[in-house]
This record gives sequence, C-alpha cells and structure tokens, in this order.
Amino acid sequence: VSSPVSLKVALLGCGTVGGGVARLVSQNAEQLAARIGAPVEIRRVLVRDLARPRPLECPKEWLTTDPEVVLGDESIDIVVEVMGGEEPARSYLDRALSSGKAVVSANKLLLAKHGPALLRTAARRSVDLAFEAAVGGGIPVIRTLREALTGDRVLSVHGILNGTCNYILTRMRNEGASFESILKDAQKLGYAEVDPAMDVDGHDAAQKLAVLSMLAFGAAVDIDQLSVEGIRDVDDVDFRLAERFDFNIKHLAIGIARGQKLELRVHPAMVPTSSVLANINDVLNGVYIQGRALGPCLLVGRGAGELPTAVSVVSDLVDVARARLANASGLATRQIQPINRSLLSLDDLETRYYLRFDVGDDPGVLGKIASALGEQGVSVEQMVQEGRAENTGNPVPILIISHRCREGAVKAAIRSVRDAAFMKRPPRFMRIEDI
Amino acid sequence: VSSPVSLKVALLGCGTVGGGVARLVSQNAEQLAARIGAPVEIRRVLVRDLARPRPLECPKEWLTTDPEVVLGDESIDIVVEVMGGEEPARSYLDRALSSGKAVVSANKLLLAKHGPALLRTAARRSVDLAFEAAVGGGIPVIRTLREALTGDRVLSVHGILNGTCNYILTRMRNEGASFESILKDAQKLGYAEVDPAMDVDGHDAAQKLAVLSMLAFGAAVDIDQLSVEGIRDVDDVDFRLAERFDFNIKHLAIGIARGQKLELRVHPAMVPTSSVLANINDVLNGVYIQGRALGPCLLVGRGAGELPTAVSVVSDLVDVARARLANASGLATRQIQPINRSLLSLDDLETRYYLRFDVGDDPGVLGKIASALGEQGVSVEQMVQEGRAENTGNPVPILIISHRCREGAVKAAIRSVRDAAFMKRPPRFMRIEDI
Repeated sequence: VSSPVSLKVALLGCGTVGGGVARLVSQNAEQLAARIGAPVEIRRVLVRDLARPRPLECPKEWLTTDPEVVLGDESIDIVVEVMGGEEPARSYLDRALSSGKAVVSANKLLLAKHGPALLRTAARRSVDLAFEAAVGGGIPVIRTLREALTGDRVLSVHGILNGTCNYILTRMRNEGASFESILKDAQKLGYAEVDPAMDVDGHDAAQKLAVLSMLAFGAAVDIDQLSVEGIRDVDDVDFRLAERFDFNIKHLAIGIARGQKLELRVHPAMVPTSSVLANINDVLNGVYIQGRALGPCLLVGRGAGELPTAVSVVSDLVDVARARLANASGLATRQIQPINRSLLSLDDLETRYYLRFDVGDDPGVLGKIASALGEQGVSVEQMVQEGRAENTGNPVPILIISHRCREGAVKAAIRSVRDAAFMKRPPRFMRIEDI
Repeated sequence: VSSPVSLKVALLGCGTVGGGVARLVSQNAEQLAARIGAPVEIRRVLVRDLARPRPLECPKEWLTTDPEVVLGDESIDIVVEVMGGEEPARSYLDRALSSGKAVVSANKLLLAKHGPALLRTAARRSVDLAFEAAVGGGIPVIRTLREALTGDRVLSVHGILNGTCNYILTRMRNEGASFESILKDAQKLGYAEVDPAMDVDGHDAAQKLAVLSMLAFGAAVDIDQLSVEGIRDVDDVDFRLAERFDFNIKHLAIGIARGQKLELRVHPAMVPTSSVLANINDVLNGVYIQGRALGPCLLVGRGAGELPTAVSVVSDLVDVARARLANASGLATRQIQPINRSLLSLDDLETRYYLRFDVGDDPGVLGKIASALGEQGVSVEQMVQEGRAENTGNPVPILIISHRCREGAVKAAIRSVRDAAFMKRPPRFMRIEDI
C-alpha cells in the first residue's frame, strides 16, 4: 500500500545507470523523503527484456515491456529516462511531458537534438525537464550553469567532455605512443567502445556542448552545423613538439559568446601546460566556465560511470519532486527556452595557431613558408626547424606558432603551399587555446 | 506601488557584497522574476552610516540605521545578511528566523559558530537558511554538497579555502622569497589585510571548514576544538626542498569521515605536484570532494570578491524565494541538522610526513636521527642530506620523507632528538597529503 502523498516514479530503462538509480533510491529512501518532503516510490520500470537479471532493488513486479503501461499510468508523477538513443526515447518523453509528467533524462543525444522542442513542451504544460546527468556525469555543471549563475552572464565554456578522448590523449602523451596503438589497448581495457567513432570523432563531446549551450547561452544549436573534429589525426609527433613550446594537447568543446553570435567548436587543441585544463588527465572530465560576475570557475570529476551518473539523476529527481510537491513545477524549465543563435564561421575565428610543415631538407623552404604566411597577414611568433635530416631523405618538420590571427588567413596560407614539391606530407595545424 | 505577489527583501549591511547584491537584483530584475515566478523587491537596507555613499541601485529611501524598522517589518519575506561579524548579526538572524523570515547569509564566522543553532531555529519555524556565499565565494561548493550529493555519502573534503594564504604561498614558491617579505607586498597590493591574522593563521579557513562540515558530514563542530595551523612558519627553504621530492606546499582545510569519528584539520601541507590541488594558484580557491558514489569532484574559482560572492547570494535568494512562493519553505533546512561528532586526535592521524632537521655537520648525526625514528616505529621512505656545509659552521638540513605512520610516533621521535646538541634549529615537520 503506497502512501497517498508519495511521489510515483517510472524508470524508462534499467541498465547500469537505471540500476544505480533504483539502488540509490532504495538505499537512501529515508534521506530522500526528508529532503523532498514526501517519500519517492518507483512504480514501473520499462525494459526490453523481462528475463535479463536486474538488481535486487528492482523487483520483477515493477518490470514491463509495454510502454503503454508506463506512459498511460496517470498515477506516475515523474518519468526518469535512462534508456538512451533518439527513438523511441523522444516520443516517450514528449508524451510524458504532454500528459503533465515531470521528466528527468540522462540522454545527451536526445537533449542535443530535441532539447529545445522538449523544453517547449514542458513549459507549455508547466512541468519540469531536468538533465544534470546528460553532461559530465557526476560533475554539477548543469546545476552550476542553471542555478548558481542566475543573475550572471556566461562568457565562455571550455570543456574536456569526453573521457575516452582524454584517456587516449593522456596515454599518447605519457607513453609517446600512436593513436592507433593506445586506442586498441583502451578497447581491450574497456575505456573505449568496439566502435569508438562516437567518442574519438568528437560527436559525443559535440552533443554535450549543444546541451551546455542551451543553458550557458540560451541557444538552440543544430549539432549538424557544429564544427567537430576528433582525435584520430593527432600525431605522437605533435605531442613531442608541443612540449617544446610548453603545450599539452587536449580534446576541447568550446562555446564563446561573441556579441549576438556564438562560437561553438569541438577539436583537439594546444593548451599551455600551466592552464587549468592541461592537467585534467585520464578519464576525468572538466569544464571551465567564465561568468561576467562569477569570474572563472572550474569543475572537474568523473564524466561517466554508473554511480556518478545515477547520483546526478537522483539529485534531479529530488529537484523536480520538490517542485511538484510544492505546486511549483515548470518554473525552472520555463526559464530555459533556447532560441536559435547564429554561429561564428571558423574562418572568422581569431586565435593563435600551431602549424607543422613536413618538408624536404632544403635551405630555401623556410623562406617560402614564411612568405606564404606573410602574404596572408599571418604573423609568426616562433619558428623552429627540427634537427636536420642529414640527407636521409626523411622530411624535416618546420614548426610555427603564430600570433593571434584569423583562421581564414591561416587556411589560405596553408592552401598556397600545400601542393608545393617540397611539402612531403599534408600540412597540419592546431588551434592554441590560451586559457 | 509594489506588486502584491512580489517578494520583499531586506539587506542587513550594504558594503561591497551588499552593494553587489543590490546591483545584480536591479540589473537582472526580469530574469530573476522569471526564474522565481514573482518579482523580487528590496525594501529595506540596514546600514550603520546614512551619509556614506551607496550604489545607485540602493536609493536613500531604503536605508535605515534602525534594526527595528527592518526586523519588525512583517512584510519582509527574506533577510539577506551581508554585514559580517558575530554580533549583532547573530541576534538579528535569530530574530528574523524566529519571526518566520527566510535568511540568506554570507557570514562564515556566524555560521561556523552558530550555524547549528540557527538551523534549528529555522527548522522549528519551517523557514530556509541558505549560505552558499559563506564559503568559496563564487564556487558552488555548498550547493554541490547540499544538493548534488543527495543520495551520496561524502568521504572527504580537501580545500584551499583562503585566497590570501594561497596567494602568499604561490609567490613564495615562484620567487623563492620569505613569508614576511611576500606578506608585506601582499598588504601593499591589497591581497592581505593590515591585520593578516585571520587569514595567515588559518582561522578563516577553519571557519569555512566548520561550515562545510555541517553539510558534508552533518557535523556540528566547535571551531575552538579544531587543529589549526597557519602559514607563518612555512620557510622558503621548505619550498626549495619540497621541489626535490616533487611536492608543492599548500594551505589545506581537510575533513575526512573516519567511521563514527571525524578528522578535521587546517594546516600547510606537502602535496605532490601532480595532485589536482597543487596547481591551484594565486588567490584561487579549490575544493576537492570525494563522494562514495560520486567519486572525485574538484571545484575551483575565485574564493572572494564582491561580484562572485554577490552572485552566490543572489542564487540563494532565488532558491529561498522559490521555496517560499511554493509554500515549500524549510524543507532544505530541515535536512541539514548538524549533530556533534567526536574528532580524531591528531596523534592518531596516519599519513606520510616530511621532516627537516637542521643539524651540525657531523657524520654521526644521520644515524642518531634514523635510530630515533626507528625506535618510534617511523619507517623512512627517503632520506636526503643536503650539500655539506664544508666547515662553515652553518647547519646542514637532513630531509626525511616517512612512510605512512601515526603522527604520535613522529612527534615522539622529534621530541627525543629536539634537545640534542647537534640540533641547530627546532626540527620541522609537515604532513604529506597524497590526493
């Protein structure tokens, strides 16, 4: 027999995160009830396979494979979506919100693609849609952007948002090894998926950046419009050469307010080793936020994992449950109604650049490259020619650190020398982030 | 004419933080109203001096020097205390809470000393007492402990909580300079007070640790019982020697759950340079939290300053205003009711230690010190004798890094050699924090 004032919760999905949520809710029942003001009761759990073993805290009688049983149940107050994927999650949540249920979701893909639409539905029905767990696992980045920054303007967000990329780059640096060899080992150890594309090609980080941008900049972002580069092309040579200039290489997701426009990009970048982001290593995630009033704020923690993510889901559950109990549903959601913002073209980006030209060992080449850069107005801060190849025929790398300049100019300069006979490999460039 | 549903706010104090709050509330009025669900209106501002200039956003007609006018005003919903100090702030807030007003306070001294009593009063009257701004300025550490960790257990908190100490230690390290010389310069530059005792003797950090402990461990702490050491005794020699072992020296406030007991201490410590806390420099604050479920979480930002602190006050204001509007006041407060926890004695502390003995240049001394340590069961991990003094008569430092051992044993070993003829200066020891 359930208490008449208890809050009824349904889980969509009961994998590792869902199991963690069930466990936390059961183990901390008393604490949660005190915090919320009423007990929380999981009533339904939608799964695909009734036969699969579930945690003790998720008894058989809660399970169903029929979405109708869950979504059509009018007694359910809050739907917790931990199933992942775009469909059917989107339709389920749309229906849940439309019928006045609050929703907690840990689904970054869904929020990146359909967050603005779901938030509109939620606002229309005055219900809450919370998603702390969608970005940064146990790091309270959503909460910080959403609540602590009330009364502030976010100027920029720089994030190490993908644990797999950070793990691989950390090991490449420490071991002087190639991307391919570390990826293979990471797959063996379970730090990278069998199909690693989502992670190492930057799509996961791009989705998270889109979710952060909704809160940081009130922006509805089309993730297909984002500039996204992964880490497959990061070369162990670049790590070695980066050290010469006191840089480390990190895979960053960056959002910066530029007047009415927004600069959003995901790519590997050179960061000074003294930078706060340079020393966030292994699978850790980190987000560096600059607020106009708040100043700089860095949040670091485990970006993924059953328990950190489940803790974030439960903290959202507490928030929406309290609001519901207090008849204050939807206030938080109404505040976040992202609108379209136009994106700054990468050609208009201005930063410093690291450039690498692998050239034939010919004394005239340096001058030709310097001239090509000069013609485009790219001013050189440092130029280093690595130890000569002594007639081995091996290419010699020329490294250049530019002053701040337009990316369009850098690319034009690269294009103008790319096909020259002395160019032994395609030129490489990487943005330098001075944070 | 004020809207009947607006929330009426009184400020106690209108110095830099109070002025910042008035400015943020005025400049973000629309945004705040949307977030809360009703407009917020500052009605009264208690000041000591009516003649002092105030920000534009704080018009003369709000000001009063009479506490009765503010505290006796039944229309006031929320009292924001930014006056600081123990009395009369304590009596004002006790009265405000007792008469059913919600309170937002940025006063760490008050909360460290009277937090548990004020929280009891708040719970009895079902009103909220929020204090995000009391610790860590703009860093959302209170919020993180209070909300995001619902459903978790905090295992430990390691904080760099005093910006002045961190600034001085950072410069001592970078410049190889003495404490006294950097302190003087910091006072000139406004980074240290004319009377620096609160900061450099560790009391400010101790108060913040007491406040964090209420939330992290549910502990009511008597700050006079805390073990507190400042940074006056940190020697530029220790910095030089620390580098040899890849350590940096940071002033830390540490709280660790040890079964039923609590380990709470504030002191300078050696931290490995690869540690997340080792690279938080200058006036920045940082808090490293380990949660059972959450794992590690690091929060870094400006620990003080008008605007970061004001942003935290306003974010609290939003929270308590929303709860009040929703008739959900006091739920958050009722959850935090700290109780007395007994503290672990420092003698029972187990960690690694850095020891420095400045001795006469005599080949037998090393053996005597090693024996003294051995007799107390202190096992040596590394022992280094600095370059011999070549009969200059100057003392020669012997450095020792111990394995993990009881602090009582280390102190006993030090006592047993302290008065020996070969000991040219009092022995020094520092705890090593391997985080």
